[in-house]
Parts: sequence; structure tokens; C-alpha cells
Amino acid sequence: MILQPVTDIAEICARLGLKNVVLSPGSRCAPLTIAFARHPEMLVKTVSDERAAAFTGLGMAQISNKATVLVCTSGTAAYNYAPAIAEAFYQQIPLLILTADRPNEWVDQQDGQTIRQTNIYQNHIKQSFTFPADFTHPDAVWHAHRLVSEAINLAHTFPFGPVHINIPLREPFYPNPDEVFSYTKNLKIIRETEPALELSDKQSEVLKAELQQFNKILIVAGQQMPDEELQEAVTSFCAGNHSVLVSDVISNFNAENTIKHQDVFLNAKNPAAQNLHPDLLITFGKSVISKNLKLFLRKSPNLQHWHIQPAGQVADTFQALTKIIRCEPVSFFRKIATVSGIKTTPEFAKNWQQQDARAANHLTNFFQNKPFNEFSAYWLALQHLPENSILHVANSMAVRYANLIGLPSGKKILVTANRGTSGIDGCTSTTVGNAWESRKLTTIFTGDLAFFYDRNGLWHNYLPANLRIIVFNNQGGGIFRLIDGPSNQPELDEYFETRQVLQAENTARDFGMKYFKSATEAELVKILPEFYEQNGAAILEIMTENLANATVFKEFKNSFETN
Amino acid sequence: MILQPVTDIAEICARLGLKNVVLSPGSRCAPLTIAFARHPEMLVKTVSDERAAAFTGLGMAQISNKATVLVCTSGTAAYNYAPAIAEAFYQQIPLLILTADRPNEWVDQQDGQTIRQTNIYQNHIKQSFTFPADFTHPDAVWHAHRLVSEAINLAHTFPFGPVHINIPLREPFYPNPDEVFSYTKNLKIIRETEPALELSDKQSEVLKAELQQFNKILIVAGQQMPDEELQEAVTSFCAGNHSVLVSDVISNFNAENTIKHQDVFLNAKNPAAQNLHPDLLITFGKSVISKNLKLFLRKSPNLQHWHIQPAGQVADTFQALTKIIRCEPVSFFRKIATVSGIKTTPEFAKNWQQQDARAANHLTNFFQNKPFNEFSAYWLALQHLPENSILHVANSMAVRYANLIGLPSGKKILVTANRGTSGIDGCTSTTVGNAWESRKLTTIFTGDLAFFYDRNGLWHNYLPANLRIIVFNNQGGGIFRLIDGPSNQPELDEYFETRQVLQAENTARDFGMKYFKSATEAELVKILPEFYEQNGAAILEIMTENLANATVFKEFKNSFETN
Repeated sequence: MILQPVTDIAEICARLGLKNVVLSPGSRCAPLTIAFARHPEMLVKTVSDERAAAFTGLGMAQISNKATVLVCTSGTAAYNYAPAIAEAFYQQIPLLILTADRPNEWVDQQDGQTIRQTNIYQNHIKQSFTFPADFTHPDAVWHAHRLVSEAINLAHTFPFGPVHINIPLREPFYPNPDEVFSYTKNLKIIRETEPALELSDKQSEVLKAELQQFNKILIVAGQQMPDEELQEAVTSFCAGNHSVLVSDVISNFNAENTIKHQDVFLNAKNPAAQNLHPDLLITFGKSVISKNLKLFLRKSPNLQHWHIQPAGQVADTFQALTKIIRCEPVSFFRKIATVSGIKTTPEFAKNWQQQDARAANHLTNFFQNKPFNEFSAYWLALQHLPENSILHVANSMAVRYANLIGLPSGKKILVTANRGTSGIDGCTSTTVGNAWESRKLTTIFTGDLAFFYDRNGLWHNYLPANLRIIVFNNQGGGIFRLIDGPSNQPELDEYFETRQVLQAENTARDFGMKYFKSATEAELVKILPEFYEQNGAAILEIMTENLANATVFKEFKNSFETN
Repeated sequence: MILQPVTDIAEICARLGLKNVVLSPGSRCAPLTIAFARHPEMLVKTVSDERAAAFTGLGMAQISNKATVLVCTSGTAAYNYAPAIAEAFYQQIPLLILTADRPNEWVDQQDGQTIRQTNIYQNHIKQSFTFPADFTHPDAVWHAHRLVSEAINLAHTFPFGPVHINIPLREPFYPNPDEVFSYTKNLKIIRETEPALELSDKQSEVLKAELQQFNKILIVAGQQMPDEELQEAVTSFCAGNHSVLVSDVISNFNAENTIKHQDVFLNAKNPAAQNLHPDLLITFGKSVISKNLKLFLRKSPNLQHWHIQPAGQVADTFQALTKIIRCEPVSFFRKIATVSGIKTTPEFAKNWQQQDARAANHLTNFFQNKPFNEFSAYWLALQHLPENSILHVANSMAVRYANLIGLPSGKKILVTANRGTSGIDGCTSTTVGNAWESRKLTTIFTGDLAFFYDRNGLWHNYLPANLRIIVFNNQGGGIFRLIDGPSNQPELDEYFETRQVLQAENTARDFGMKYFKSATEAELVKILPEFYEQNGAAILEIMTENLANATVFKEFKNSFETN
């Protein structure tokens, strides 16, 4: 039986500009599956593992900034979406989650695939709506149409994020042969315009006056997508006010003079770091990877911290937050531009730039003549990244290495990462979503644990030819050997590092991907260009030894101070 | 730094009789990892994918009926437990879930692996406790000890189920070299005795009087573990009161005269079914698979339904519930035993037994001379199950076939299945847990979708030699071709059946398992004994064609009426 309001969900999605749909197979969700699969404007894919499905949806929305529609059946299927929903919530990525459900009277009646779905995502969702189950009263139809518009609009209201509609459905789920399937033509759609989140002239004057009291201004960009206008405005501000801009690898900020090796030189043992403390920190964007930067700023004496964010809860990442400025960051930097009478001097910026240059130099020299190891291999792989491509850095060690080394300059590489919750549970799937949506060459740098954890991200019939996977396989959670605490415990091997024996060759065979493998630097240098130039999805597995990895990385950490 | 109350969680678990621990690697959970790994009475395993880890824990507790301890790090790791927790909740399996967390002040501060963990399982957990973060006041230590006892006791109070302790932990996580690691000797432990849930003499007299009014009494056993005392009591009751006992394959009820082919003969087209309607239905245990039985009983005119369950919410599965009897089922059947003056006659039971015998006979004949297909292969595989072994039937088609065919008699096969929520997300992992705990030969019958969905259940260093996996591979969700609605839709191939190309050989190679494959009946008959007799974990993959499967199964469904 066709339930017209359920069919029309697809039409409302299309009319409000959504395009991508990821379905997971099921019976209860059949009316939704049919509604989306038949819609001419919807691009529908099927991914069987709901955990992976949700992360592929997140990966697409990461690139498009438009909600991906996720559709799953009732029961624990819905729970498998939860990790990606939490990631989307903290990374502020729009998702429209449609979960089919039993009607309410059948909950807790021991029917198959039935759980208490109301509010299951409640800690990490912008809102959960319940779709009507009966449409005998016309108000129910109005309600059904209205709430779909509301949900989509809410997903795209700053801060963007995941929105859930739970949809109770009764049998029969399939159209009868005599029913005509169509979308309603004159649906009522609610369109919501974006607010202009500008800094007012008055606020701008107040802030300018306040800025005069500071001597050392540091700007830190958190995770965000590339934004040339913002980059230009911040660069001018820095030039005009002798300020320093620090960016993480996930900030996608590549202006000249941007500090990017803070994780190298801001360690507790570097005496020069003492001259780098700011008295005003200005931030925008989402999370920051650099742990040394966080620890350094949390210890900065007399620090004030201004955070620019149009709306929503603000994190006090550096334990120094004193002012929240509600506007688009670009508006702030343009309106403030130059502060007359500011006390800042070029000295402060120069100190930061000297340290950054020293760290960059140290990195270049460090990798000469080392036994083959993961950190060096990572450096090499970064240098070979193709121009105008996408790099997804997986949690946990991959993203840390990337932030230490930094991107090769001038290549226009867009970096994505699941740093909302920093899980290893969906990195491959997210990258697949990135590749589907961007159409650009898309590479993931991942450890073996994250890779095998999420290999169901490759289990579908839409493997993108522009996907490249580099697995840094040290046969376990090598990170635990690199950090101090666990490496001294007798439980290291079995319970922290968790030795695992899988290599990616069988996986490549399973999914019909080309497979490359390297265990020496010479091989790697030879393979990398080939790996990128050949056509088709491919896996490059770089095998390293955990002990060598730990030795070299420790040497790196200790070498900078005495350099 | 050692936090003694955290260390002592392991000691309290041991003192209250818990034994099995499944850890997933992480840094935040290190104090828990160390506490359990070092405890001499705890059996600790590491499984990297938390979703799979939780299901292996559930599989162990399914057999032992003692809570498995699950330990994971903070962030989405905790969310990956949710599917298994929902399954445990509805299947009433005890679990003690310990999630490491950031202390509260760091939530929503953009730190890595930090989500809002408080109450994340709230819809499907018996209770969530928050462990103290500070122990400066002695009451906090008392609280910490007390709540661990409370949580363990609650998990083992009827209805058993999952209990959660969220544990905020501050760095440093690891013992310093100068700290002495030990468990506290004189911990206060709270032990709780089980209540005697007996039917009182007075209640028994009242029920006996009420029973006199019924003519046709049907007893249905839901999912439960084997219980010889109960089986004996029910068998006597049936003999004494001319009543009929119907059991599902997951009821583990193998008494002679038990009806077990109800799914075959209770279809809407069998005219003989009209003589089988009871006027009183007595049930106990958990869920029932047989869809035909449910539909049949929901349509029984003037049906009264008594359900026997010591405590907790009761499902009205057959839409006819009129009385809830609060005692152990064995107590009910023993106390009532024979009802003098009861109006029931042997005719009713004879009708049921005739139909059951007819269905059994039909099954035996049906599989002769069929083209190779999944249903026949399933029948063959069931006949070859070793004596005194465990069979896990995966969702969805595998468990339905098993219920149609029934077990070979006299082999003492214990059947487990995830029928709390009927998900495909953890069947393999659950079977691995069954195998670890039972030490008996443990076989899973699974479809290809369920198998590949959950192959991380094999990704650890504890592959049990007594594990046998039979994958019925029809390269997709063949179930959708077997049911009426979707098989008529143009979306069948891509969006319902979800064709998938994986075969299990690479997976077997990945995990060092022996691999057998069969695509004909002759091969299968030859391979099955070998598959069971050889030592070591093994996969047998049975390849069938979806079209042949659908044809044969349809023939089966249509053949019974005209038989």
C-alpha cells in the first residue's frame, strides 16, 4: 500500500535541494526505499552495514555541506548509525536520518527488529521528530509535510548537524499492482533563508577599543573547510596588527606565514617556547589536533581568549575563554582589519615564524638516513600527494603524524578528518563518501586498526575509482608504544598494542581493488607515483615494524630541543 | 597513577563470581584494562571492534548466565556497544558495561574521543551508574564500592539484563614505577540472594478453579535455555490435562509430543488449522519466531492468554493477554499438575499432533530430487549437526529455515539466536562467545549478509578451535526474493536483495581458518562429516542461486496444502 506522505518525503528532500541518499536494506523501510529509489533527482546508494552507511553519508556531506539522507530499517540498524551521528554532531555536518519503526503499539511486544527508537540519539542530535503513523485526519498530513521541511532546515541552521525523523510504518509495505505511484505536485515546502551573521559597526568599535590593550595576539584556526575569503581577511588582519596565525592540518588554511609546525616546537622542553605566549588568543572553527598547542596555551599566563562563532555552544578548549563573538569569522576580521593604536609589535610574529622555520628545517633533515619506519614513510607519502586532491587523515596516529609534518605547500590539498569524536570506527567509510561527492582523487592515510575496523565501508557496489587507501600497517595499535604510559606496562603487547595479523591483500582481493605493498623506502619511492597514476581504486600497504617506529619517533621527539 | 577504587572494580567483580572480560583497546580505559588484565581470577580477551566485542560478551553470557564484563574507552567506542546492549536487554542477558569517560568538565570541550556518555544507553539498559571521579572524601570510596556491587546484583535480578557504569578518569592513567599495584583485601561486598518465585497454594487453587472453564489448552514455550525440570513439569501437565505444547526451535524444548512444525502447518491456506484454535493459551519464556503461529493465535476467537513470568514488563505478543502469573514457570506447572474436573479432551491434542506429523512427513519427502538450493542445503546441514553441540541460528532467513525444519531429534543440540532484536549485526560474534564459553562444538548457520556484516567477530587472537561457520551464500539478501512484496518491485535487485559479491574464502585466509566450499548436494554430503571431524575453526560456504532458492521455497510453501 502506498502511503502518500511517506512517498512525499523524497519529494520534499528534492525540493529543498538534497540529493544524496544512502539506504541500508530492510523490509520495514521499504516504503522509504521505494520513495527515494524512484525519485529522478535523488542519487541513491545501498550500503549494507549501517555503521559504514552512516559514515559514507557523513563523508558526502563533509564535502557538499548539504545533508545526506540516511534510511534504515527498524531495530538495532538504527543504533548502528549512532557513531556517525555523534561525529556529525560535533563536526557540525548536516545529516537527515530516517529510521523506519514499528508503530508505537508494537514496541516491547517481542516482534523482530523492534527496539525503543524514540530519542535513541538524544545526546547527539539537533532534534528528533516522530512522523505520524495515521493520516485519517488532514492535520496529520500537514504535520508530516511540515516536519520534513523543519528537519531539513534545522540540519542546515548554524551550527549544522544531524536531525532525526523516526517513521512508524504498518504493513503492507509495498505498492499493490493496481496503485499508481507518484509524488504530490503541490506540496507545501517551508524554505528558510540564512541569517546574515555580521559584526555590527557598534560591536566592531567596542572590540577595536578593547584590542588596544593587548601586546601579543595569536589566532588559531580550528577544523574547517577551505575558505579563501576568510583566509584573505585573516591574513590582512595579521599583517595589519602584527598578529600570528596558527593552523592545524585540518584547518585547511594555507596562507603564507601560517604557522603549521606548532606541534613540533611547542614542546615543554623547548626553552624558546617561553617567548611565544600570547596575551590574546582569537579562535574560530572547530577542533584543533595539536596537543602541544593546547597544553602550551592552557599554561599561558594572563591569557584572554576570544572565540568567534555565529551560534551554538562554545568549547573552552584552552581553559581561558573570556569572550564569545557571535558573527561569521570573516565579518570579524574584515570589520576589525586594522586597529589604530594597537600595541603589538612585529617581534612576536617573528619569534613564532623563526620557530616554525626551524621546525620545518628539522623535519626535512630528520628523515635522512633513517631505518625504514612509519613516520618516515608517512612523510614520503605526504610529499607524493597529487595536486588538487583530497586527503582524509584517519584517527589516531595518522592524523597526528599529518599535523606534525604538515602538508606539502602549493598543492591545494583539502584535508578531512573525523575530529568531532576522533573515533577509528568510520574513517574508511567517510573517505569513500568524500570520494563519491568530490570526484577528485581522494586518499586516506590510515593505520591498520582503523582500516580493518571499518572495512565494511568498502562493502557495496559503488567503489569509487578515485579512491586511494594507504594503510600504515604496524600490525597493531602502534600508538601505544609511542606514548609513555602504556609502553612501560607488562600489558603492552596483548591489551594496549593489541597485536593483529591482518594484511590488506585479501581485502583488496575481496573488493576487486588493486593492491600495492611496500616494506622499504626504495620500494615506496618507486610505488607511490604508480599508485596514484594508475586508474581505479587501490590499496597501498606500507609494512613497518613497531619497534623501529617507536625508536625513530622517540628520537624525533628528543632531537628537536638539541638541534 | 593508581586509583585504588578503579582497580578494585576487578576485585569486586571476581568476588561476586564474574569471570569473563572483553576489553577493547584504548588509552582512557587503561586503569580498567590493567585492573582486569592483572586479576588472577579474570579471563580477559581483547577484541578491537567494540560492536563485535560486545556481541562476543553477550555470547558468553548467553551460555553462562553470568554477566560478561565489557570495557571500552571513551567516545563513540561506547556507542558501538549499543546494538549488543539492546539485544541483551530484550534477550535478558546479564552484561556489566564499563565505559571509560572524560571527567564531566571536559565534555563538549572538543577534546578527542569525548561524547555525552551519560545515559547513552538509556532506552535499553536496566540502570546506568556514574562512578565517582574524585576520592578525597571517604564517602566517595564507599559509593564506588557500593555501586559496583549494586550494578552486578541488578544485572542478575530477574529479568536479567545489561547494566552500565560510566567511569570518568583523569590522566595519568598508568601506574608510576614506584607505585605498588594490589587489590584491596577487605572490600565491602553486597551479596543478594535470589527470591523464591513460587506459586502460592492459595493462588494455585484459584487458578485450578479457573482452568476448569477451558476446553482447549495450548502451551507455547518462548526462547529459553534448556531446562529439564521445566520440560518434565510441562510434559506432565500436558499429559494430565490433555494440553498441547508448542515449541520454537529457540525454545530448547525437546520433549516427545512437542509440536515443532507449526510454522509449516499453521498457514492460512490449511483448512485443518481451523480445528486447532485453543480457548486458553499459556506461555512462558521470551520471543517466538514462528510468524504463522503468531498470526494464527491473533485470530483465535475468544482466546484467553496467561503468561507466566516472575517479574518485569510482559509482551502481549498474541494480542490476547488476560492474565500475568508472577512465578517461575516450573512452579506453576508443578503446583497445578492435574486439574480435577477439567473439560479438555484428548481430541484437541490429537489434532495438533496429526498436523505436526503430517508436516514432518511432508518435510522429509519434499527435499527429494530438488535442484540444489538453500532450503535443501539447510535441511542437510541440520541433519549432520554433531551430537551434544551448540547451534547458533543467525538472523534472518537462517533462523526461519531452522524453525520450519526443526532439529534432528535425540541429538541434544542447544540452540542460541539473537531474537531479542533480531539484528544481523552480531551473529558471528555471538557465536564466537558461545564457543569460548561452552567449549562444545559450536556451529553458526548464517546468510552471507549477516556473515560479512559481522566479520570483525573473528578479528582477535582467540579464534576458538570448536567454531564452525556455515555460510549460506546466495550473494545478497535472498530473503527479499522469498517474500511477496519486494519480489514484485523493480527495486528488488539493487535496493532490497542488495546483490553482493563477497565469498568467504579470503576471510578464512585472513583469520587462518580452514575453508570448505560446496555448490552441489553431492559435494555437501561428502564435505559435511569432514567439516565437523577435522580439528580447528572452519568455514563451510554453500553457494546457491537466488532464483532456484526462490522457486523451491515457493514450491514448499504451496505444496503443503495440496499434499
